[in-house]
Amino acid sequence: MTTRRQFNRSVLLTAGAALLRPREDASAIGVDGRRLNAHLQELAHYGRNPQGGVSRVAYSEADVKAREYAVKLMQEAQLKVGIDAAGNIVGARDGTEPGRKALVIGSHIDSVPEGGNYDGDVGSMAAIEVACTLSEKKVALRHPLEVIIFQNEEGGTVGSRAIASGLTDNDLTLVSNSRKSIREGIRFIGGNPDSLSGAVRRKGDIAAYLELHIEQGGVLFKEKIDIGVVEGIVGVYWWDVVVEGFANHAGTTRMQDRRDALLAASRYVDAVNRIVRKTPGSQVGTVGKMQASPGAYNVVPGKVQTSLDLRDLDADKVRTIFAEIQREVREIETATGTKFDFKSTNSTPPAPTDERIRSAVDEAAKQLGLKAKRMASGAGHDAQEIAHIAPVGMIFIPSQDGISHSPREFSKPEDIVNGGNVLLQTLLKLDEMF
Amino acid sequence: MTTRRQFNRSVLLTAGAALLRPREDASAIGVDGRRLNAHLQELAHYGRNPQGGVSRVAYSEADVKAREYAVKLMQEAQLKVGIDAAGNIVGARDGTEPGRKALVIGSHIDSVPEGGNYDGDVGSMAAIEVACTLSEKKVALRHPLEVIIFQNEEGGTVGSRAIASGLTDNDLTLVSNSRKSIREGIRFIGGNPDSLSGAVRRKGDIAAYLELHIEQGGVLFKEKIDIGVVEGIVGVYWWDVVVEGFANHAGTTRMQDRRDALLAASRYVDAVNRIVRKTPGSQVGTVGKMQASPGAYNVVPGKVQTSLDLRDLDADKVRTIFAEIQREVREIETATGTKFDFKSTNSTPPAPTDERIRSAVDEAAKQLGLKAKRMASGAGHDAQEIAHIAPVGMIFIPSQDGISHSPREFSKPEDIVNGGNVLLQTLLKLDEMF
Repeated sequence: MTTRRQFNRSVLLTAGAALLRPREDASAIGVDGRRLNAHLQELAHYGRNPQGGVSRVAYSEADVKAREYAVKLMQEAQLKVGIDAAGNIVGARDGTEPGRKALVIGSHIDSVPEGGNYDGDVGSMAAIEVACTLSEKKVALRHPLEVIIFQNEEGGTVGSRAIASGLTDNDLTLVSNSRKSIREGIRFIGGNPDSLSGAVRRKGDIAAYLELHIEQGGVLFKEKIDIGVVEGIVGVYWWDVVVEGFANHAGTTRMQDRRDALLAASRYVDAVNRIVRKTPGSQVGTVGKMQASPGAYNVVPGKVQTSLDLRDLDADKVRTIFAEIQREVREIETATGTKFDFKSTNSTPPAPTDERIRSAVDEAAKQLGLKAKRMASGAGHDAQEIAHIAPVGMIFIPSQDGISHSPREFSKPEDIVNGGNVLLQTLLKLDEMF
Repeated sequence: MTTRRQFNRSVLLTAGAALLRPREDASAIGVDGRRLNAHLQELAHYGRNPQGGVSRVAYSEADVKAREYAVKLMQEAQLKVGIDAAGNIVGARDGTEPGRKALVIGSHIDSVPEGGNYDGDVGSMAAIEVACTLSEKKVALRHPLEVIIFQNEEGGTVGSRAIASGLTDNDLTLVSNSRKSIREGIRFIGGNPDSLSGAVRRKGDIAAYLELHIEQGGVLFKEKIDIGVVEGIVGVYWWDVVVEGFANHAGTTRMQDRRDALLAASRYVDAVNRIVRKTPGSQVGTVGKMQASPGAYNVVPGKVQTSLDLRDLDADKVRTIFAEIQREVREIETATGTKFDFKSTNSTPPAPTDERIRSAVDEAAKQLGLKAKRMASGAGHDAQEIAHIAPVGMIFIPSQDGISHSPREFSKPEDIVNGGNVLLQTLLKLDEMF
């Protein structure tokens, strides 16, 4: 705890970065790919699991140790490092033009339980590497630069929410994967849950936010594309679904007399799949939960608890799909003598990225000779929170076999270097653009 | 325990029934309907639940008390009462023609947890009432008569199996709903698990077996029919079904890249229903279990555990339906990139009733002015065990709304009296016939 306290922002904010090279030379520079991959490997020690990958859930001892490591790297990159009230690690570098707002790059280093070594880690280590490269190559930016390692992304983008919209009292009482409440967790990593307003930034406080991340899906990998230019983070909508029929004896109840909740639920699962797939586009729909009650060989199920997850960049499309699902459900109810109930449990709107930043990423990839593709992010990211207060952009690199949240998560070292260089070159373009 | 011990069969078998009336007058006699319904109401006290119905699982204190009550009624009906080694209560009455094997009538008085007051109870009280009526009306039968109250029907027709095929060591170690093993339970109700061979009867030992039971389904009730003439107890076939797909992120995995075990399982449920229903007949097919793993909103299910229950009077028809389900499952596997595994966990062959007995029930109902219908029993009964060693028949009466295994189980007093009279008149016909 005492080690972390010494990184207090106000104490360290005095050190400055030397600005020695003209910016126009910068398009030729690149990150130190060996160093970037070495840092990723070192980071993988914190919370490492015997079977591979890490369990480095937010507010765990492993999380704290990994954060200390990140702070050390940031200091080596000549950043002025502090912990904000919400527990985010903020490394700052001055810009040449007074009054400009900061360009922010970053990601997270907490993991899901039994997670991998790339989700969040790649973007975090690459952001530090970019700052380090700028410092080593003596490249000055017009804007101040901040590298932020957001806390507890996996537990609900907690750190970035604390910055973009603030945390509620209810948020603070939620228990995280470490078994600490968010409030206890923030204290544990050196933040101050009693003065969270100090962490909040307002619209206009950040010039632009840019995040490199692994895709966590299989599109780039399958299509052999180097760089994903993210069009936005999809809206995520969840429902609890309960199907009520009538439990009855499987031997004595004729087929035509049944009100089988599982038959109805099964037709619903098929309908969701069919409706989501029939419209062109990258929208997804998932039924992930399904439990039949009473759940015996010889009882016609009287009740089923199931779910619905719909995602798309276009909230209207999700509404249309949901309405169509509802229409089919009414038909299923009539045909099976059952009743469906949908209860909304999560409704996170889409967070589109900024078209100027997308173009900058496109250009940076082109300039580096990399194949790029525009795509949506189906997973949530800190960028979706920052999108509330600033223009945001995201860069994806391929995930092998599309696997993520698993010890088998893997991105090739050369893809990581590509991502680091696109991050660097896009940042340089944003510095001109904003 | 001591009360029960005194009903040892060998001790009591000496008392005889007086045979005073010629058999040809007997077609005019009937059971005492008020007494029969009063006995049912008294029996309902043993194990009564506050919310109605009874929890009188085999080998419980309530079961023992109810058995003592049944023994008292049997003694009042002039039966010689004993407990066989398996714990079945056997009330015997002599016949007029030496060397004839016994006609057996009976049922069970144990219940499922939170069961009703009619399943088993109606047949048991009616069998005793028939014996009592024969005794009161001084009707002699050519055959000896036995009234048997089989123990633990609900736990797997244990008592009737002990008579028809014997119990295995494995059966005896199974733990019943009372939390006693079958072995402990048999001892608890006054049987002797160490000499079970004494309870076994061989083919030919029983002239015929006849059982009155509530339908436990809604056919007679819906079609306003008084009496079901049971064509047999359907074969019951169970499978554990496991569907393997691949768990993946619900946001980042494109619809076309998924191997969704729940989508596959849902199509399987629909296929089972469609295949079972498309062939004419009374066969039934049920998927009662369904659980998706890992079971989160945002994870494409990688595994589903489900089941299959198929029943029909014709084992070949079940085989054909199962084969057709397998064919569709192969198509579902291909379409969804999943793998199904079926493991047979129960395979009880159909137990047809004897055509001579069916005709006797038909005639008895006709003679009493009752509307009768031939039908299969979708539920298991003690009769299906006895069918291994003797010709069997079953008589059904209506269950209100088809509800059974529930405190809401109900059969009208007049239907119960009808059932008792059909049981009596059919028994008289069997006495002529066999």
